[in-house]
Amino acid sequence: MSELNPLLDVQGLPDARGVDIQHVGISNVEIPMTLVQKDGKTQVVNARAKTTVGLSSAFKGTHMSRFVIQLAEWSRDKVFSLNLEAFLQELAQRLKAESASIDLEFRYFMEKQAPVSKLSAPRAYGCSFSGKLVGDQYQFVLGVTVPVMTLCPCSKAISKYGAHNQRTDIRAKLLLDTTTEHPLVWIEDVVAKLEECSSCGLYPLLKREDEKYVTEKSYENPKFVEDVIRDATIALRNMEGVQGFSLEVESIESIHDHNAWASHAEGFELIS
Amino acid sequence: MSELNPLLDVQGLPDARGVDIQHVGISNVEIPMTLVQKDGKTQVVNARAKTTVGLSSAFKGTHMSRFVIQLAEWSRDKVFSLNLEAFLQELAQRLKAESASIDLEFRYFMEKQAPVSKLSAPRAYGCSFSGKLVGDQYQFVLGVTVPVMTLCPCSKAISKYGAHNQRTDIRAKLLLDTTTEHPLVWIEDVVAKLEECSSCGLYPLLKREDEKYVTEKSYENPKFVEDVIRDATIALRNMEGVQGFSLEVESIESIHDHNAWASHAEGFELIS
Amino acid sequence: MSELNPLLDVQGLPDARGVDIQHVGISNVEIPMTLVQKDGKTQVVNARAKTTVGLSSAFKGTHMSRFVIQLAEWSRDKVFSLNLEAFLQELAQRLKAESASIDLEFRYFMEKQAPVSKLSAPRAYGCSFSGKLVGDQYQFVLGVTVPVMTLCPCSKAISKYGAHNQRTDIRAKLLLDTTTEHPLVWIEDVVAKLEECSSCGLYPLLKREDEKYVTEKSYENPKFVEDVIRDATIALRNMEGVQGFSLEVESIESIHDHNAWASHAEGFELIS
Amino acid sequence: MSELNPLLDVQGLPDARGVDIQHVGISNVEIPMTLVQKDGKTQVVNARAKTTVGLSSAFKGTHMSRFVIQLAEWSRDKVFSLNLEAFLQELAQRLKAESASIDLEFRYFMEKQAPVSKLSAPRAYGCSFSGKLVGDQYQFVLGVTVPVMTLCPCSKAISKYGAHNQRTDIRAKLLLDTTTEHPLVWIEDVVAKLEECSSCGLYPLLKREDEKYVTEKSYENPKFVEDVIRDATIALRNMEGVQGFSLEVESIESIHDHNAWASHAEGFELIS
Repeated sequence: MSELNPLLDVQGLPDARGVDIQHVGISNVEIPMTLVQKDGKTQVVNARAKTTVGLSSAFKGTHMSRFVIQLAEWSRDKVFSLNLEAFLQELAQRLKAESASIDLEFRYFMEKQAPVSKLSAPRAYGCSFSGKLVGDQYQFVLGVTVPVMTLCPCSKAISKYGAHNQRTDIRAKLLLDTTTEHPLVWIEDVVAKLEECSSCGLYPLLKREDEKYVTEKSYENPKFVEDVIRDATIALRNMEGVQGFSLEVESIESIHDHNAWASHAEGFELIS
Repeated sequence: MSELNPLLDVQGLPDARGVDIQHVGISNVEIPMTLVQKDGKTQVVNARAKTTVGLSSAFKGTHMSRFVIQLAEWSRDKVFSLNLEAFLQELAQRLKAESASIDLEFRYFMEKQAPVSKLSAPRAYGCSFSGKLVGDQYQFVLGVTVPVMTLCPCSKAISKYGAHNQRTDIRAKLLLDTTTEHPLVWIEDVVAKLEECSSCGLYPLLKREDEKYVTEKSYENPKFVEDVIRDATIALRNMEGVQGFSLEVESIESIHDHNAWASHAEGFELIS
Repeated sequence: MSELNPLLDVQGLPDARGVDIQHVGISNVEIPMTLVQKDGKTQVVNARAKTTVGLSSAFKGTHMSRFVIQLAEWSRDKVFSLNLEAFLQELAQRLKAESASIDLEFRYFMEKQAPVSKLSAPRAYGCSFSGKLVGDQYQFVLGVTVPVMTLCPCSKAISKYGAHNQRTDIRAKLLLDTTTEHPLVWIEDVVAKLEECSSCGLYPLLKREDEKYVTEKSYENPKFVEDVIRDATIALRNMEGVQGFSLEVESIESIHDHNAWASHAEGFELIS
Repeated sequence: MSELNPLLDVQGLPDARGVDIQHVGISNVEIPMTLVQKDGKTQVVNARAKTTVGLSSAFKGTHMSRFVIQLAEWSRDKVFSLNLEAFLQELAQRLKAESASIDLEFRYFMEKQAPVSKLSAPRAYGCSFSGKLVGDQYQFVLGVTVPVMTLCPCSKAISKYGAHNQRTDIRAKLLLDTTTEHPLVWIEDVVAKLEECSSCGLYPLLKREDEKYVTEKSYENPKFVEDVIRDATIALRNMEGVQGFSLEVESIESIHDHNAWASHAEGFELIS
């Protein structure tokens, strides 16, 4: 039988193993969060959060409910811009920790216009905000996934007509300069830049004249995953506010069951 | 504190609510199973099983461990052909039930040759076996998913060159005639028939001459999801041993984030 | 080479195969939708939509862009209550079809208070709206998944102390009476009713006094999946506005890799 | 229209952008692979592979079909032990590359005996082999996920009876010493070591006497995720052949929708 003590703070007990834990907290927390869009309006996203602190070897456990309390408060009262530093400072204080982290994954909606008919509909992009605070060092990583179209240069070159093409994900993680007063990098900008690296962008809504445009544009603009990742590398090297990046390109090949895949990173050194 | 009785068969206690439960058992069980291939050889698949019985209102619970015991015995000792009836009869008896069911989902490997170079590599297909026994009525459903290529007829007709194309899943569930002595329908046959309904099949391995062939064949053979599902419907109506079927076609459009989708069923009446 | 005709309505061409297709349209469409909550306020959910029409054998294809146009219009302008009939009538008309369907899957947030401390935080539930129109017959199915806690009666009865317990999903699909003027069934009500069928509800936020309450309540209230599905069956039989239902209960057993699973349906006859 | 040249090696063309790509190849390839078990027998696993090479800025593309050819050859002819170095050397040579990598993810079956009844059934573990070759530097990482049971120390301490418990994943990545002649670390050993760090192991098959044992053992042995990760850290520090490791522990809390989560790494420095 348990020795009953309803007041016992088990987590606060000392621990004899002498192991500092790098990250402990909660994962898979769903929470609405309000973000600022580039146009200055706000958007409420349905975020899936993981948030942690470092735990000193002196204590048996952390206090999990405090993470939820802070997430719920920020969900109610705050508007997230690209800077999560204040969230992490508050969290580290609440949990008496030297380090803290948060990862938010969410779908972000933007209207997108068809290229010819100019009809528009909403489109969702997979995005993430990851913030880390270690002592007084702070890092912020913006994640954006942009599904695009790629058309195979080899298939085009060797075939009498046609060329295989397919949906391709460009996944970027950007280590941002957080010393500036205002955000320099918006999801909207990253999406636009990365889309230019493809054979053609994707659209939620295409009428016949748009479908003709998209088909012909992609045929005129064939790209391997190698081409996409090289163009994206050059684009991100030149993007103001980006200190480093990690890129993945995965093409859902229309001729295979498997995918073509490439990755490349520059200056993407994360604290831990 | 609990009243301790280590011998108590809690599941076997009577239940006063008067509710017969249609299906109760275990799900998400991973288990190796040996299947017969069309060529007579066997293949060990990594199956994910769900298996249940009907539970009379007279009893509080079923005996979950007996399902695992039987699955483990069949995993060790038996070769599955298309007939699961014996498994279900044994299960119903073990659990003193009037009805029993099993669903096995697994990846099934077949070698596939490239169309021109004739080089070959293994390729996996998502398959399922579902058996149901209610009293002395028995039904068996074979599930096969065949990823293929579709090229858009509209895109081809309206564009100066090229046409968008993509990976497309054809998902078939076949209600089989189980009164025959030998299986009439093999996974290998279903895959071959359904693949013919597409713009072109997919291949694990393509050299340059093969890629040219696949690109040109698909361009000469454009298909909407509507075309694929109609051709598949006609193919399955004419397949010996198939009493009914349910079809789904989902095309991972290369020009959109969303998919084109169609479904159609004929004579697919399941007992429950 | 293609015969170029940028104006050709390929989809509108006649089809010679003589096959009516039951459902054709688009799937995996992400779109924000505004719903009415029980308290009269609205909530914008991030919905994943599948929407289809029946296609007569007379035509080669349907017009996929019209589905997106209508979804985008309803996303902008309309508030969904439990009645999707008007959406489907409009869709059938737009696409000159005899039948139409829509499925929306989304996460729905509700605040939930801890049982003792009364602290509260948002919690998301997996929900779905499915509407079908065939001629002038209309059906609406509400889907709600409620994760709860179950504590094993057998484990409690046979052990000196403790009892294994785990997270368990209750998944309900309710065929609703749509002839009434005002909705009789709210997500909020279904969640509350189903949660009562468990050993204890789950909470986003629990302080120590709450954790004590939840632990003791579940220990006093042991339930097999069989108990949960029987209690849920009785609860739904008695819920006004529910014409039929289908239930699934899946328990992520803390002592196994696999799950305990049960399903049961009554009066759940869908048109197709 | 394309300028047709069926013999053109488009991939081999020069590229003017001056960007070396770190990794390019194929992902999501399903392929059967034969592994050696600790007992000396072999097991055919259904692997999902990603394999890449580094691509010099001098060339437009890599040759994707060669990856498939090599995977298919190794699938047919070779038995994988813990050393993938030969695979990578062959791959680098085939593709004239300076670096190469492979990741194989698979389910690995082991028989597991119940603690009291000694009945046994197969159980699958999520595993991975990751090899990297950069010049003449070689690294091998073994990944093993072990689902276990954890029982909450706080819940036990503050409650009159019972304690919440749940399924918990321990995910380990081990950077292995590859300079030894024979493998020092087996999946079987890692599973056994990590399972000891939990409140109790999971079992595929438990009779009533086993369930009593498991319930009581876990109650006597409460563990937070913090306890599990500390015990696992100490265990891996002391495991011969392990040069570094990365650990994740995620507990599917039976009282919450979200999970408790911890991570910790030591000496886990990967070449890239």
